[in-house]
Formats: sequence, structure tokens, C-alpha cells
Amino acid sequence: MELLKQRILEQGEGIGSDIVKVDMFLNHQIDVELLCEIGKEFHRLFAAASINKIVTIEASGIGIACIAAQYFSVPVVFAKKGQNKNVGSDVYTANVHSFTKGTDTVIGISKKYLHADDRVLIIDDFLANGEACNGLIDIIERQAGAEVAGIGIVIEKGFQLGGQALRARGYHVESLAVIQSIENGNILFG
Amino acid sequence: MELLKQRILEQGEGIGSDIVKVDMFLNHQIDVELLCEIGKEFHRLFAAASINKIVTIEASGIGIACIAAQYFSVPVVFAKKGQNKNVGSDVYTANVHSFTKGTDTVIGISKKYLHADDRVLIIDDFLANGEACNGLIDIIERQAGAEVAGIGIVIEKGFQLGGQALRARGYHVESLAVIQSIENGNILFG
Repeated sequence: MELLKQRILEQGEGIGSDIVKVDMFLNHQIDVELLCEIGKEFHRLFAAASINKIVTIEASGIGIACIAAQYFSVPVVFAKKGQNKNVGSDVYTANVHSFTKGTDTVIGISKKYLHADDRVLIIDDFLANGEACNGLIDIIERQAGAEVAGIGIVIEKGFQLGGQALRARGYHVESLAVIQSIENGNILFG
Repeated sequence: MELLKQRILEQGEGIGSDIVKVDMFLNHQIDVELLCEIGKEFHRLFAAASINKIVTIEASGIGIACIAAQYFSVPVVFAKKGQNKNVGSDVYTANVHSFTKGTDTVIGISKKYLHADDRVLIIDDFLANGEACNGLIDIIERQAGAEVAGIGIVIEKGFQLGGQALRARGYHVESLAVIQSIENGNILFG
């Protein structure tokens, strides 16, 4: 998606060899106009997937998922992080390891909001090693018995192996911008 | 907002005397169609406030703020919870005490995304004791020198004193549903 790549080049910040900061427009300040274009693009890419629900993880996935959901006319369910008493006890959970932060986080979705006949589009801001996606897939498919009909990612770190592994398992993954490398602050797309 | 009150009565769950669970449509599963009506209503109520930015707190405020922002054509900035290295060191912070959870949380907004000439609409899902709002006001007004031009709340707990105190300080607070009491599972509006 050219508009997005352009924005990453203009306002993104490459740090070291594997971090790209996009908090100017995507995950701290949010350019909602750009999000609408991202949402339309996800709808174009997954229009044929007959989804009935979008699932994401708090926090930065929520805005993207809600804006995209308008074009699909489906509800959003977001996985909550940490033990949250407001979710209740009837919860599917998965453990998500973050290589970046070196931490483990429990994510949870109430059993009330995932059913065996759901066709789910997973949406997230970043795909790197795929740990968050794998946690959601475990919840959606293995635990709830539903189907992951697509995975829509705003920015994929192509130099990490999450996307490759998900595609090898047969998932329909669409990333709107794939970063091939970050060198001396320069962000290069694949 | 009748549509919202109706939904709270149909799908909300009153627990004890002070908790209302709306995770069916607002803060776990999100009915984006309802969110659009909420966003339009906020726009109607604050159209004259000449805002240029919406500020909220992760996580459940983000979807509401992003959908509403479309009708104002302004960006969203969400305060991050906890110490987050991705925000950087140049951050306004405030301490938010939660009476419900009995915990203290640091919230932070990068100095890059708040300026002295900003006219901010604060949006959040709930207003109870007003601690989250007070933290945001401290960041926006006292620290950044900007102006809070309005506070838009989806559900206010009218039996707690946050809204009353904010209005007494002169803030333009609009709550789309004000709950007066919760008794034996029954939710009564003010």
C-alpha cells in the first residue's frame, strides 16, 4: 500500500536493525484518515473471505480493527492483556511471548464472543515473530473451534519469520507494508 | 442517547451496587455500528467546540475515540498505561488511581503529540470518580498548556462524583448515558 509506505518513510523512525517507530500516525497518535484507507484496503483484500468477526489484541490493534470493521459491517472482539477480573472466568487464554520486550503476557477472550461457526479476520498493527498471531490462532481455532479466514497486518517485519511461518501453515496473510531491513535509520521495503 | 440506554438495558449487566458490565458491545466485543452512532452524537454535542484533537486512554477508549474522530476529522492520541519504552523519555505523565481495582497506574503521552495551541476533546468509555479524566486534564492543561474543550463520556456513573466535580470546575462534560443506580441487577438511568 503505497500511501502507507510513503507515510512510514516520512514519519516512521528506524532504530537499530529491527525497530520501527510509527507512533506519529499509528500507535500513539493515530491518523484516522490514514486508518480509513487501511481499513478499505483490508476490505478489498479480504472481501471474499466471508468473515463475520474481526479479532485483535489491545491496545494498538483496537483502533485499526474498529475502523476496518466498518467496511465489513462486523463486530470487533479484542483480546485483553493480563489477568482481568472484568472479563470473567469463562475465558479462552493464551500465553504470548514478546521477543522485543523479553516478557510473557497472558491474553484472554471471553468464551461468549467466539463460537465454532465464526469466520475470523485477525487484524494487528505489527507482525514480527508471529507470537501474538499464534496466541490468537490457538484461541480462535484450537480452543473455540472457529476458523481464521484471514490475517491482516499493517506492518510486517519481513526479516523476522512470523509471516513466513504463518503462510507456510496455509494462512491467508496480507501485510500492507513489508519492511525488508532497517540500516542506519533507513527503512527498506520488500 | 436512547439507542445506547436501550442497549445497556438489553445487554448490560448490573453487578452489586456500582458495576455495570458492557463487554457485549462496548469494551470487549465492540458493536462498531453502535460506535458510529455514538461518534455522531459526540460530534453533534461538541461540533461548536472547535477541537483539533481527541485524547483518550488505552485500551477501551481507543475504538470509541477513533470512530468519533472520523466525524471531527481530527487525529486521536491515546495515553499509554505503564512505563512503556516505546513512548520514549520525553513524556508527560500522571498517576491514575482506580477505586474499582484499588491500583495506581501511570499514564503517559509523548510531548510530541500535545501542544499549547491544542483544543482537546477527551473521550472515554466510563466516568465514575473521574480519576482518569483528572489525570488527562493534568497532562493536557497543566503540563502541555493546552485546553480541554470538552469531555465526552459514553457511560457516567451518576452515583459517583467525578462528573459533578468536573462540571463544577467548568468543564463541558457530556455523558450519553447516566446511570443513577444499580439495584438487584436493575440499571436505572438518571
